Amino acid sequence: MVDTFDAVDIIIAKRDAEILSDNQINWIIDAYTSGEVAEEQMSALLMAIFLRGLNRSELNCWTDAMIASGERLDFSFLPRATVDKHSTGGVGDKITLPLTAVVSSYGVGIPQLSGRGLGHTGGTLDKLESIPGWQAELSLEQMGQQLASTGAVICAAGAGLAPADRKLYALRDVTGTVASIPLISSSIMSKKIAEGTSGLVLDVKCGSGAFMKELSGAKELARTMVEIGEDHGVHTVALITDMDTPLGLSVGNALEVRESLEVLGGGGPKDVIELTLALAREMLDVAADIVEVQGIPGAGILPGSKHAQSRVEELRTADVARSLTDGRAMDSWRATIRAQGGDVDGEMAWAKFTEDVVADHDGFLLSLDAMKVGLAAWRLGAGRARKEDKVQIGAGVVLHAKPGDRVRQGQPLMTLHTDTPDAFSRAQEKLEGAWSIGPQAPQPTGVIIDKVSASTLA
Amino acid sequence: MVDTFDAVDIIIAKRDAEILSDNQINWIIDAYTSGEVAEEQMSALLMAIFLRGLNRSELNCWTDAMIASGERLDFSFLPRATVDKHSTGGVGDKITLPLTAVVSSYGVGIPQLSGRGLGHTGGTLDKLESIPGWQAELSLEQMGQQLASTGAVICAAGAGLAPADRKLYALRDVTGTVASIPLISSSIMSKKIAEGTSGLVLDVKCGSGAFMKELSGAKELARTMVEIGEDHGVHTVALITDMDTPLGLSVGNALEVRESLEVLGGGGPKDVIELTLALAREMLDVAADIVEVQGIPGAGILPGSKHAQSRVEELRTADVARSLTDGRAMDSWRATIRAQGGDVDGEMAWAKFTEDVVADHDGFLLSLDAMKVGLAAWRLGAGRARKEDKVQIGAGVVLHAKPGDRVRQGQPLMTLHTDTPDAFSRAQEKLEGAWSIGPQAPQPTGVIIDKVSASTLA
Repeated sequence: MVDTFDAVDIIIAKRDAEILSDNQINWIIDAYTSGEVAEEQMSALLMAIFLRGLNRSELNCWTDAMIASGERLDFSFLPRATVDKHSTGGVGDKITLPLTAVVSSYGVGIPQLSGRGLGHTGGTLDKLESIPGWQAELSLEQMGQQLASTGAVICAAGAGLAPADRKLYALRDVTGTVASIPLISSSIMSKKIAEGTSGLVLDVKCGSGAFMKELSGAKELARTMVEIGEDHGVHTVALITDMDTPLGLSVGNALEVRESLEVLGGGGPKDVIELTLALAREMLDVAADIVEVQGIPGAGILPGSKHAQSRVEELRTADVARSLTDGRAMDSWRATIRAQGGDVDGEMAWAKFTEDVVADHDGFLLSLDAMKVGLAAWRLGAGRARKEDKVQIGAGVVLHAKPGDRVRQGQPLMTLHTDTPDAFSRAQEKLEGAWSIGPQAPQPTGVIIDKVSASTLA
Repeated sequence: MVDTFDAVDIIIAKRDAEILSDNQINWIIDAYTSGEVAEEQMSALLMAIFLRGLNRSELNCWTDAMIASGERLDFSFLPRATVDKHSTGGVGDKITLPLTAVVSSYGVGIPQLSGRGLGHTGGTLDKLESIPGWQAELSLEQMGQQLASTGAVICAAGAGLAPADRKLYALRDVTGTVASIPLISSSIMSKKIAEGTSGLVLDVKCGSGAFMKELSGAKELARTMVEIGEDHGVHTVALITDMDTPLGLSVGNALEVRESLEVLGGGGPKDVIELTLALAREMLDVAADIVEVQGIPGAGILPGSKHAQSRVEELRTADVARSLTDGRAMDSWRATIRAQGGDVDGEMAWAKFTEDVVADHDGFLLSLDAMKVGLAAWRLGAGRARKEDKVQIGAGVVLHAKPGDRVRQGQPLMTLHTDTPDAFSRAQEKLEGAWSIGPQAPQPTGVIIDKVSASTLA
C-alpha cells in the first residue's frame, strides 16, 4: 500500500458529508484491522457513516476492503452452480433448514457459512446443533467435498473470512452504530462474497421482529445489498418478507428443527411452507440465470450449450412444492445432516418444564408480536446475551394460534418451554401486550411483501 | 447517584436526534470520567453530538456535569469584582498581556487560569515564560493572595479543574470532533465557571486563523457561550474579532511579550491597541454591571450603596486609552509579573537565526493569511505539536507590513526567527500563498466585528 492517511482527516471528511476515496477506505479498513487506527477513531467514523451514509461507490469499496482483510473462497471447481441464502434475522425463522434441503435436491450447491444467534433472533448453527452428533465446524477441504457430494453445507464461518467485519461488528454493537443500512449491508455482503457463492437470495425481514421495522427501510436495505452483490459479480435477488408475526408455530432450537422436519415430511405450518417455496423458487431461478450466462465451468458445460440449456430448463420448471411431498427434499436433508455427523433418527432433547399462556377472552387472534415472542424465547434459554453463553436445546415457545385463528378464553395460546423454570416469569413479562384479540377476523396476509432484483432496480 | 444507564441507549438517543435527560448526561460524564464508559463509546456520542447538536438545556447540563467532575474555586471573599477574559485562539494574539495590566490597574480582579499553545495558536503561559523567573504554577492560596494584592493572576489550570474536559478534549482531538459549537463552548465555559470568576469577556475569533472561519459560526459560538455563562450566573459578554490577519507585528513567545511591552509603553501596533482597549472597556463594564447588581460582598459594599455607585461610576468612565500612555497599565504589569517571580527588567532570549521573506512585486499588501503565518511560526519552533514538546522562546515571525501598507519588490515582508535553521524551509513552505499584493489599497477594516451579550440575545 503506497498511500497513508491520517485517520482524523478521514473522519472529518465523512463527518462533513464528503465522499471518501477508494484509497482512504482501503487504508482505514486495513489500518483498523491491524490495530493502527484506534477503536475510538473507528467508532467516530462509524457514527459519521451512520448519519452521513456511504454512496454506492464508497460502499462497494468498503465491502471490498472488508473482503480483502481475509481469505476468499472459490467453488468454481464444483460441477454445479452455487447459490446461497441469507436472512436478516427473524423470530421462528427456521427456513434455511427445509430450504437448503429443497434446493440442494435439485443439484444446486449451497455453500452456507452461518452464524450463531445473538439477542432475540435464533442462529441456524444453534438449531442444527440440537441434532445429536451434528458438527458445525468443518475444514475448507471438508466443505468442498460435501458441496461436491451432497450439494449443501451449513457450517460455521472460520475466523479467516472478513476479519475486519468481525472487529467492526463488535465495535458497532457497543457504540450504537448497528442499524445502519450501509454498515449492515457491507457486513452481510462481505461475508457472502468472500464465501465464494455465485448466486445469493436474500430474505430481508420487515416488521416488529426485524431490524427493519418499516417497509421503506427494508426496501432500501434490500436494494443496497442487491447492488453490492451484482457489482461484485454475485447474482443477487432479495425477497422482502413479513416479520411482524413469528414464522410457523415454533420458536427455539430443537422445536424449530422438529417443525422443519414436519415441513420436509409434507406437513407443517402454511407460512413456513409458503416462504420456503418462494425462496426455493428464487434460488433455482438464480441458479438458472447463472448457468445461462456462465454455463457450469466445473462440469465443463459451456454457456449456451445443449447441456446448459437443458439444465436451465430443469431448474426453471422444477416443481418445488412437490419436493416436500414426494420425499425428495427429506432425502436431501438426511444426506446433508449425515455428512456433518448428525444422527438423523436421534432423539432431540425436550425442555424439562413447560407452562401454558392462555387467551384472556374469546374472539379472533388479530396480532402476535414477533419481537415479544422472540424476547420470551430468549429469556427461556433459546438465545444468548453474550457470545460465550450456551443455549438450551429444548427451550422456546410453541404457538397454538396464529393471527386469523379463532380463540376461546382460557385456551392455551402458547406453551413456554425451558430447563430453568425461574425463566417463566421473565418470559411472561416479555409477553405482556404481545397479542390482541378482537371480534372480527383480520384480513389474511401473505408472508411475501416484495421482491428486489437487478431488473427491478434498473 | 441513583439512576444508571446503558451507554448504548444514550448514544442511540442522540444519534436519533432525541433530547438527552439531565440524568443521562450526568451519568455519562461521570461514568466516562471514572472509566466505566469506554473511549469508543464516548467518541461515538461525541460524533452524534457534533452532527445532532445539544439544545440549551442539554448544554447547560453537560457543562454542569463537567464542572462537577472536579473542584470549583470561589473568589467571592475578594474586596473586588472579578472578571476574566478568554480568547478562542488566534495568531499573534498577545492581547491578554496588555489587557490584564490595563484592567487590573482599575482594581478589577482577573483570576485567569490559562493554557499552553497547541498547534498554530500560541499559549499565554508559553509567552509569559519567556520572562526570566516567571512562574506559571501557583497554589490556590498563592492565587488568592495575588488576586487580593495586585488584582491579576495568570497561571496554569491545575488538574483538579473540570477533569472530564481534559479527558474529553484529548479524545475529541483524535476523533475529528473538535470543531463543534456545543463541545467547544462547554469545554471553555466549564473551566471558566469552575475557575470562580464573576464576569467574563470572550474574544471570539473569526477568520482564516481561527476555529471559526465564517461569521455565522463565530456568532453562534459567541451566543452559545454567553448563554451558558449567563445561565450559570457568570455575567458574560463576547466580542467577535477579526482573525484573517495576525494581530500586531509579532508572532512567537518572547516576540509577543516585547510587542506587549511596547503597547504598555504607549506605542505598539494599532490593531493590538484597538483590541486591547475594546476588551478592557467591556471588562470594566462587566465589572460595573456586577457591582451594580451584587455590590462588592468581599469589601462589605452593598448593591445600591453610595460606595457601590461611586465604584460603578469610576469603572464606567475610566479612560482606558490613557492608562497605556500614563504608565498606569505598565505599573500594574510590573507588579503582576513580579508577584509571580518574573524579572521585569530581565533579558528575554532572541532566536539564534533569522531569515527575511521579501515582497515579490510592488503594490499594496492586500491580505496576509493568519493561519499560514501561524503555521510558519509553529514550524519555526514557537509552537508545539504534542503537549510534551518544548517551545523556543525566541522563535517566530516578525511582520514588516500589514494589509493596506505599500510594499516594494525585494523589501522584507517579514523576518523568520528560529534556533533551528533547518526550520526555515518548512516555514517558507507554509508561507506559500500567504499574502497577496495588488495595485490598489484595500478598504481599511477594524478588528472588532460584532458584540454579543445577554441584551443582544433577548
